[in-house]
Amino acid sequence: MRFDAFDAYLCDLDGCLIAENALLPGAAELIALAGDRLRVFSNNSTQTPATLSLRLARLGLDIPAERILLAGAAAVEVLARRPGIRLALYGSAGLRAHARACGLDPAATEPTHVLVTGDRGLTCADLHAIVAHAARGAAVIGANPDASRPGPDGIPIPETGALLAAIRTVLPDIRLSTFGKPSGEFYRYALERTGPGRRVLAIGDTPETDGLGARRMGLPVAIVGPASQRFASLPELIGANPDFGLDRHRADLCAG
Amino acid sequence: MRFDAFDAYLCDLDGCLIAENALLPGAAELIALAGDRLRVFSNNSTQTPATLSLRLARLGLDIPAERILLAGAAAVEVLARRPGIRLALYGSAGLRAHARACGLDPAATEPTHVLVTGDRGLTCADLHAIVAHAARGAAVIGANPDASRPGPDGIPIPETGALLAAIRTVLPDIRLSTFGKPSGEFYRYALERTGPGRRVLAIGDTPETDGLGARRMGLPVAIVGPASQRFASLPELIGANPDFGLDRHRADLCAG
Repeated sequence: MRFDAFDAYLCDLDGCLIAENALLPGAAELIALAGDRLRVFSNNSTQTPATLSLRLARLGLDIPAERILLAGAAAVEVLARRPGIRLALYGSAGLRAHARACGLDPAATEPTHVLVTGDRGLTCADLHAIVAHAARGAAVIGANPDASRPGPDGIPIPETGALLAAIRTVLPDIRLSTFGKPSGEFYRYALERTGPGRRVLAIGDTPETDGLGARRMGLPVAIVGPASQRFASLPELIGANPDFGLDRHRADLCAG
Repeated sequence: MRFDAFDAYLCDLDGCLIAENALLPGAAELIALAGDRLRVFSNNSTQTPATLSLRLARLGLDIPAERILLAGAAAVEVLARRPGIRLALYGSAGLRAHARACGLDPAATEPTHVLVTGDRGLTCADLHAIVAHAARGAAVIGANPDASRPGPDGIPIPETGALLAAIRTVLPDIRLSTFGKPSGEFYRYALERTGPGRRVLAIGDTPETDGLGARRMGLPVAIVGPASQRFASLPELIGANPDFGLDRHRADLCAG
């Protein structure tokens, strides 16, 4: 199967399409090739699809919000579907507004669920509140398991996973799960949005999240960038036109 | 040696003398018995001796600032003695003022040392800045290794150690040390202030910090409270008048 013959591309954002505020080589080509088959599929937990769509437009990428799937916003939507949820959301103003738009009070008292994100504004006082909710029995959900994301200057930017490590240090026996890649929940959310029976290629730069998550779901996956054994960059991936099989065995071969 | 025959008592604060804003049984008796031989010796890294002295006075305990030894403030003082230190201090306004009083700029650019404390106001953005300093080669010092301290309602309050876990998750190979108990540096600071050749008893409620640290220094130590095998409370310790030996072997016997 040729690279351009897929029905949908679940493409990671940071390290694939952009690095902080710069477009990466091949991003514009991929979007031209994929058109409305492209989905931005990212563990980002600070932005919403709407705010990220605006940010990408400023970088010259035209990707409407409905084709942007973000772990933080998706976790909110998935929680909002469950009956009886009382949510305490620790995250950006945008994400709290997203929760309200989904019918959830993001600051419920006596929450059943706590959603932790890697927002810059989170404080030690918030960490204390999260620990208190957890000690009283609330389930703690990390928007994603990533310890950090790559910063513009090569310095890692702490992410949700770093906060989860702090919480685990205080309460080692805590009930804790994560939503973003490689968790199957985030892939099921994405595939539901893509529609059944589609031929989907996952593209990412991190074997531990993009690679592992896609392989678990039986999706073919292309890893690009320094961590890949096959595709040093997105242009190389596009240009190679490799024969992407859809069976699990071939998916493993493509996992880089 | 009788309990009241020591020249100095290095007494832990939280869990020994007070629990958040309440005096614990025996605290007033111990202070009456020990007088100016009592030193408050705590891994606290948010207050300064002056602000804690005021807080204790409000609780009815008269302990002047010069007899209060706090890990955060002591770490600042010890760093201030070293030549060529450029400090980035992540902590309370009070601790930053303490650093300035010691002749250090608490917000040095290109710091050689980063001091991390468990201050409530610290944010994920601060965590990013700490990681950036560390990635550029600064030594990271945690004011203390404690993951949490006991809160008034039994809910643990995250402390410096929880933040250090977050930092380590982002940069596993980081150069990282801690200052407070059980580190010998904090004991040496305390014993220097107490004067040479004194008979010193350490009192605490945590075997992993108060107990381990004192035993390493060859000090006799009495552990009180739930974690102790001998003294359920401070009054029991004072009333027992046990024979506290000053040799290392006897110290081990007293470690609870």
